[in-house]
Amino acid sequence: MASSEGNKLWGGRFVGNTDPIMEKFNASIAYDQRMWEADIKGSKAYVKALQKAGLVTQNEMEQILTGLDKVFDEWSKGEFKIKPGDEDIHTANERRLKEFIGDPAGKLHTGRSRNDQVATDMRLWLRDAINTLKELALQLISTMVERAAVEIEILCPGYTHMQRAQPIRWSHWILSHAVALSRDVERLEDIRKHVNVMPLGRLFLCIYNFKRILYELNFDSISINSMDATGQRDFVAEFLFWASMCLTHLSKMAEDLILYSTKEFSFITLTDAYSTGSSLMPQKKNADSLELIRSKAGRVFGREDKEAMFDTYDTVHAVLQVATGVISTLMVNQPAMERALSPDMLATDLAYHLVRKGMPFREAHSCAGKAVYIAESKNIHLSQITVEDLQTVSPLFDKDVSSVWDYNRSVEQYSAPGGTARSSVTAQIEHFRTWLQAQKQKP
Amino acid sequence: MASSEGNKLWGGRFVGNTDPIMEKFNASIAYDQRMWEADIKGSKAYVKALQKAGLVTQNEMEQILTGLDKVFDEWSKGEFKIKPGDEDIHTANERRLKEFIGDPAGKLHTGRSRNDQVATDMRLWLRDAINTLKELALQLISTMVERAAVEIEILCPGYTHMQRAQPIRWSHWILSHAVALSRDVERLEDIRKHVNVMPLGRLFLCIYNFKRILYELNFDSISINSMDATGQRDFVAEFLFWASMCLTHLSKMAEDLILYSTKEFSFITLTDAYSTGSSLMPQKKNADSLELIRSKAGRVFGREDKEAMFDTYDTVHAVLQVATGVISTLMVNQPAMERALSPDMLATDLAYHLVRKGMPFREAHSCAGKAVYIAESKNIHLSQITVEDLQTVSPLFDKDVSSVWDYNRSVEQYSAPGGTARSSVTAQIEHFRTWLQAQKQKP
Amino acid sequence: MASSEGNKLWGGRFVGNTDPIMEKFNASIAYDQRMWEADIKGSKAYVKALQKAGLVTQNEMEQILTGLDKVFDEWSKGEFKIKPGDEDIHTANERRLKEFIGDPAGKLHTGRSRNDQVATDMRLWLRDAINTLKELALQLISTMVERAAVEIEILCPGYTHMQRAQPIRWSHWILSHAVALSRDVERLEDIRKHVNVMPLGRLFLCIYNFKRILYELNFDSISINSMDATGQRDFVAEFLFWASMCLTHLSKMAEDLILYSTKEFSFITLTDAYSTGSSLMPQKKNADSLELIRSKAGRVFGREDKEAMFDTYDTVHAVLQVATGVISTLMVNQPAMERALSPDMLATDLAYHLVRKGMPFREAHSCAGKAVYIAESKNIHLSQITVEDLQTVSPLFDKDVSSVWDYNRSVEQYSAPGGTARSSVTAQIEHFRTWLQAQKQKP
Amino acid sequence: MASSEGNKLWGGRFVGNTDPIMEKFNASIAYDQRMWEADIKGSKAYVKALQKAGLVTQNEMEQILTGLDKVFDEWSKGEFKIKPGDEDIHTANERRLKEFIGDPAGKLHTGRSRNDQVATDMRLWLRDAINTLKELALQLISTMVERAAVEIEILCPGYTHMQRAQPIRWSHWILSHAVALSRDVERLEDIRKHVNVMPLGRLFLCIYNFKRILYELNFDSISINSMDATGQRDFVAEFLFWASMCLTHLSKMAEDLILYSTKEFSFITLTDAYSTGSSLMPQKKNADSLELIRSKAGRVFGREDKEAMFDTYDTVHAVLQVATGVISTLMVNQPAMERALSPDMLATDLAYHLVRKGMPFREAHSCAGKAVYIAESKNIHLSQITVEDLQTVSPLFDKDVSSVWDYNRSVEQYSAPGGTARSSVTAQIEHFRTWLQAQKQKP
Repeated sequence: MASSEGNKLWGGRFVGNTDPIMEKFNASIAYDQRMWEADIKGSKAYVKALQKAGLVTQNEMEQILTGLDKVFDEWSKGEFKIKPGDEDIHTANERRLKEFIGDPAGKLHTGRSRNDQVATDMRLWLRDAINTLKELALQLISTMVERAAVEIEILCPGYTHMQRAQPIRWSHWILSHAVALSRDVERLEDIRKHVNVMPLGRLFLCIYNFKRILYELNFDSISINSMDATGQRDFVAEFLFWASMCLTHLSKMAEDLILYSTKEFSFITLTDAYSTGSSLMPQKKNADSLELIRSKAGRVFGREDKEAMFDTYDTVHAVLQVATGVISTLMVNQPAMERALSPDMLATDLAYHLVRKGMPFREAHSCAGKAVYIAESKNIHLSQITVEDLQTVSPLFDKDVSSVWDYNRSVEQYSAPGGTARSSVTAQIEHFRTWLQAQKQKP
Repeated sequence: MASSEGNKLWGGRFVGNTDPIMEKFNASIAYDQRMWEADIKGSKAYVKALQKAGLVTQNEMEQILTGLDKVFDEWSKGEFKIKPGDEDIHTANERRLKEFIGDPAGKLHTGRSRNDQVATDMRLWLRDAINTLKELALQLISTMVERAAVEIEILCPGYTHMQRAQPIRWSHWILSHAVALSRDVERLEDIRKHVNVMPLGRLFLCIYNFKRILYELNFDSISINSMDATGQRDFVAEFLFWASMCLTHLSKMAEDLILYSTKEFSFITLTDAYSTGSSLMPQKKNADSLELIRSKAGRVFGREDKEAMFDTYDTVHAVLQVATGVISTLMVNQPAMERALSPDMLATDLAYHLVRKGMPFREAHSCAGKAVYIAESKNIHLSQITVEDLQTVSPLFDKDVSSVWDYNRSVEQYSAPGGTARSSVTAQIEHFRTWLQAQKQKP
Repeated sequence: MASSEGNKLWGGRFVGNTDPIMEKFNASIAYDQRMWEADIKGSKAYVKALQKAGLVTQNEMEQILTGLDKVFDEWSKGEFKIKPGDEDIHTANERRLKEFIGDPAGKLHTGRSRNDQVATDMRLWLRDAINTLKELALQLISTMVERAAVEIEILCPGYTHMQRAQPIRWSHWILSHAVALSRDVERLEDIRKHVNVMPLGRLFLCIYNFKRILYELNFDSISINSMDATGQRDFVAEFLFWASMCLTHLSKMAEDLILYSTKEFSFITLTDAYSTGSSLMPQKKNADSLELIRSKAGRVFGREDKEAMFDTYDTVHAVLQVATGVISTLMVNQPAMERALSPDMLATDLAYHLVRKGMPFREAHSCAGKAVYIAESKNIHLSQITVEDLQTVSPLFDKDVSSVWDYNRSVEQYSAPGGTARSSVTAQIEHFRTWLQAQKQKP
Repeated sequence: MASSEGNKLWGGRFVGNTDPIMEKFNASIAYDQRMWEADIKGSKAYVKALQKAGLVTQNEMEQILTGLDKVFDEWSKGEFKIKPGDEDIHTANERRLKEFIGDPAGKLHTGRSRNDQVATDMRLWLRDAINTLKELALQLISTMVERAAVEIEILCPGYTHMQRAQPIRWSHWILSHAVALSRDVERLEDIRKHVNVMPLGRLFLCIYNFKRILYELNFDSISINSMDATGQRDFVAEFLFWASMCLTHLSKMAEDLILYSTKEFSFITLTDAYSTGSSLMPQKKNADSLELIRSKAGRVFGREDKEAMFDTYDTVHAVLQVATGVISTLMVNQPAMERALSPDMLATDLAYHLVRKGMPFREAHSCAGKAVYIAESKNIHLSQITVEDLQTVSPLFDKDVSSVWDYNRSVEQYSAPGGTARSSVTAQIEHFRTWLQAQKQKP
């Protein structure tokens, strides 16, 4: 038997050797070794239950626990050596355990299949991963909220379809993205509940010893059906979908910021730490951090396996930190933002002006549209049309129309919840501060 | 101005005609007319708030409400005629309202953009759709659970990797799929909460009138930020993902059933109502219902718009009903299932037999593997190996090994939660009956 | 037997009725009726072969051919009535044929399965569809090339990462997109070859009669293996991939144009025929045509069935026409484009200036970078730095540096194939004119 | 300046340090180092052109060439050390070159951007990769063809919808998959042409020196437009799509083989080299090789970057080899296959029997269907119905119906091209042998 066969868990009845390409193709150790800690934790809990069930002796249990601690030690010091034949983290840890303690190692997996182990380890690992990502997301939201608080006086154009729509507060834009991220955090908590279910399948254990494992590993509940328990990866699919949605939110924010950082918009400037240059053009300063963030959306999804889970985690982990860095360091060019406000963005206000004088909105919309057309024809600003000219559109126009041409007044009139008025934006900021506080106090 | 231009809501400043291909390309009325009821409901609530806010008079409000009721009436009788220029359901309803009541119709959308309407209507429509799908899913689960209760005595092979693994109860297989669907129902409830948020954006309304709309339309909460409110479609993406996951679950069940309905397995037979034949081969009876169910997984996803939402709803709506039909009418061939149980499926039990005599599991696994190899070499069943031959593998083997060759005993030994023992499966059935009862009593 | 059962081709041995939801679920007539012409064409060719093979008489053949012509007639006049039970176009046509000519209709499908028919019809239909799309793509390319020819003198910034890079000709930008589309046309021709293969499977026919069908239906070749022939849908997958790639190209072009049509860039203006307004904001003029084009990328893909094929065709069919409309009518704002050229876009030329004086490029790149930094620090244009200041960066700088600050000269220096020089762009235009001519002369 | 900044190609005007997460996030060296050979090859060709153009001296060129050879040497010996700051393979190679030869290294990239290098390197690398994959695919096809030749006498059921349809030759099944793979090989050749286009963009070079690079690097043609040349990744998307289609073909074959290797079918047995066992169940022998092949379809796609290109290549590279191993070593169980042939699979022949006696096919199909129903009702084989009973279905039935019950005769009647007759299958085998010969003789 080839040496690489030596450690295989299913070596009994096989006589031929495995095709080495097939072996490599089948091995997952390259990525699943990241679950080393979860694997050891799970085994320690399991062997304790075996002992209570009388399937290993007190002494065997102690040997196994001590051995597992040694394996843990090697991993945490970076000294664990993967050998040929270690096809996955479970095989690797058991092989090493056997090297440390000999025969009793063979009792560790009594009544537990590798599928049980994989399912348990993935859930333990992902539970921790979710905690970390939640931390990072909260940090980003917190950065956004505090920035919004400081820069609440800056007005800028709101855009729809990349065309200037109505004036808004810059903080309002920031918070519109923070809202999306806060939904992501809340969804992550829902997923955590779905992850934190003990998937152990067909075990010999009585309910009492079964629950011991549950408590030891801090699971919230037990799977209802053993076939479903080991086979399902819904929680991974949910995590991948979550990541895809979160990255899409960050991608949309990045897309706006890339636009705002063009020379033509000049609303913001990235610091050098989040820009890169060109090997050809000395003047270039590319918003590469934003482009990377933007490009990560649509990347994950579709593969419901361990590899995708790790890859997705790494991506979100990096993106959240880069986004926090970008948001906290970018410089806002307030004059450029305000220069981009133009009177035609107040055309809706012009229509409302007529509505307040009793005209139905559809008619007022049409009148304001005609005013825009007059301004375009005369190549003047909408605010520069004379009252006489406006009166050709509707006799309701009067000198008091001049009150319309005030961006600040325009922004302030939306004081309903979620609006652009100073008070509304401040309320959003307060909402988030409270929410962040509550999030941080959760277990 | 071309007649097809007449109804456009943004007709004011445009001078050229729209390219007809472009117009058709841009129109959504073909599918969004399904939201006619939600659109009218939303408008009725909105005009009441406008009246309270003094933006329409009591009399105008009454005209608008009466007019909207007439529009409603036409739709519910199937008499509403879509005209050229009705590019979406919102335009169509407003155009018809104007035909009924004239000028006051123009006041309906004061301060509300079409984006506001779209977002509101989608949420109202999807809320109802979710209720319907939940009903259908519960019906399917209920069918599965009662079938499992009746057929609890039937044993069959459990398969992993399509190879016979260990004996299980047929009911255990059914319930493993019911568990997945019950998770889907629970997720659907989470999504319903995310859907049922009032998305109205930048309104002129004071908080009091704002909340009137909320109550009238039975929304649970209000959006935090107006830009996010009208722009985000997270709830649609969540619904599409949900559908994809639910269809994947049904697809996996269908995949197993297709296999079980092959001549080679012959475990189940579909009724004619869920089969189709071949136009060429007279003997063919295809499991087309199952193939359709299987094929629907992976269909949805990826497009986050109204069209995808409707298409996905229709698919899940049909699939759930066909699945219920299939599950309630298929005939089980108990003898074929039991013929498929073979002694090698008890090799794990053979190993446990040695474990109980004190051998470490890994070693016992290896011994049982050798026994399998002996049986294969001699071309006999595993249960037919003599005790003498077994003793060449391990001296621990004795006459009492004969107790191993009992499928029922094998199934009964897994009595932990989620196991295959009669008591465990009955507990699963009870769990579901209680859960279904609770689901039905929810509002 | 229910009346809806009456026309089913596989009715023989079935005793129960089909679940109506299942029936609707299974029916494809709603979309596959688009293949009515291909279906009739295929049947006419087939019956002729049957007659030669002695499987139908001359008289029966004539009745069938006359009957099929009547069915054809009804479809082309829009008078064909689909009845319940017509589950697909093949069933519908055969049912109608039987109504016209009675029993001989039953001989039409001797030895031919419905799968054979589906495969044949899809190939015939897609072959025509490809021809149409090729026409439309050529029209778009032609529009782009002629626009490029007329506007060759207009310079504008080239962008990479949405940051200004080096000056280019506007025509160079147009042609960069035309190249991508011309590759699409060429790929479409490759696919046409893969489509145009006769897929008839296990037939009784001798090779002679087999080839008669081939000639009659203008297929290029015959499938090698009958199982593969009827089962494979590679050609549909190829078409879907093609569409996805073509739509991605148009999407990228649209993305640039959306940017160029923002107020901030103001490079182009769409005509009203390709814009839409806002129901709320009277001044809005959205580039909806471009947004629709942009959004269609990523829509297709993934489903390899008839429905996807038709849906994809319609999408590409509309997008190509709208794109042609947009490109032919948009107005270019030359002064805005030229205002967007700034001296820092010549920083690469500044580096080359030093390279020509013997400095290694990397060093020259670094010197030019320092010059950019000086200009930014002093808040002046790169071209405004004094020679003295430049000499602090490198003594090689001299008065002749002033020759660098000429956008036209910069563009003209790239005269290699594919470059931005007037001669290179003209060569590209000539290349396309010749290529378009050649394409139009193809059969 | 931090040491990790030292090697950056765009270091000139930047003053801050790059965020280390951002740096890691942005780096591609981890995977693009696979293009080391292509990168050096491309640089050698480029510097020769620079010398001809007078942009480097003869001496500088020689230094650069010698230096590049040293870098090549280090890579091929596995001695190249990647340093912090080597963000991609291009930076790494230039950094090392500079360490070897000093300043002249800075002249290598005169007039060439990193984007030019990336595009060139990817094309050179992928060209080689395609050659390798073609080799492996041909080997697999060859294995399949020779296996089909040897086992041509073995009959087995053909399946549609996983239900037994008509008898076929086992070789016919093998070849149906070989056809799909042969189309893949042909598509790969088309893609190779699209890959092998020189993408160099805006160069200073005259057409003469430009073409020198072309010849030196064996490109087939030159890009038409410089912006398109460096920006487009169509060829990568094409390769990914190709891989996805090829893997889908292998996946379908694997799916059938998994089914055939179930205990219930028992048509084939995998050798141990392509199977794995279970850590729990000693008797299990899973077709893991086939499951891995099956699972790889649907994995690639969607990301058009370098990382996806490498990942996809590795996957296809392994899958083709494992598939070849599986196909060449699996054992066929002829008796099991023949036992699976049952008289109802000849129902179509029974219908044809009546057609030959003059009955229209639709009617004959219905009669045969009734016969199947009789057999099912009486619980006997279709071939066991008495002539008297058959005559109740149609008076055309006679004693000669017994000739129908012959599987071999059934298979032999399909002798048209692509059919199941011995002669047809042999013709397919010959076709492939010739085709393979021709493929191997291609350059």
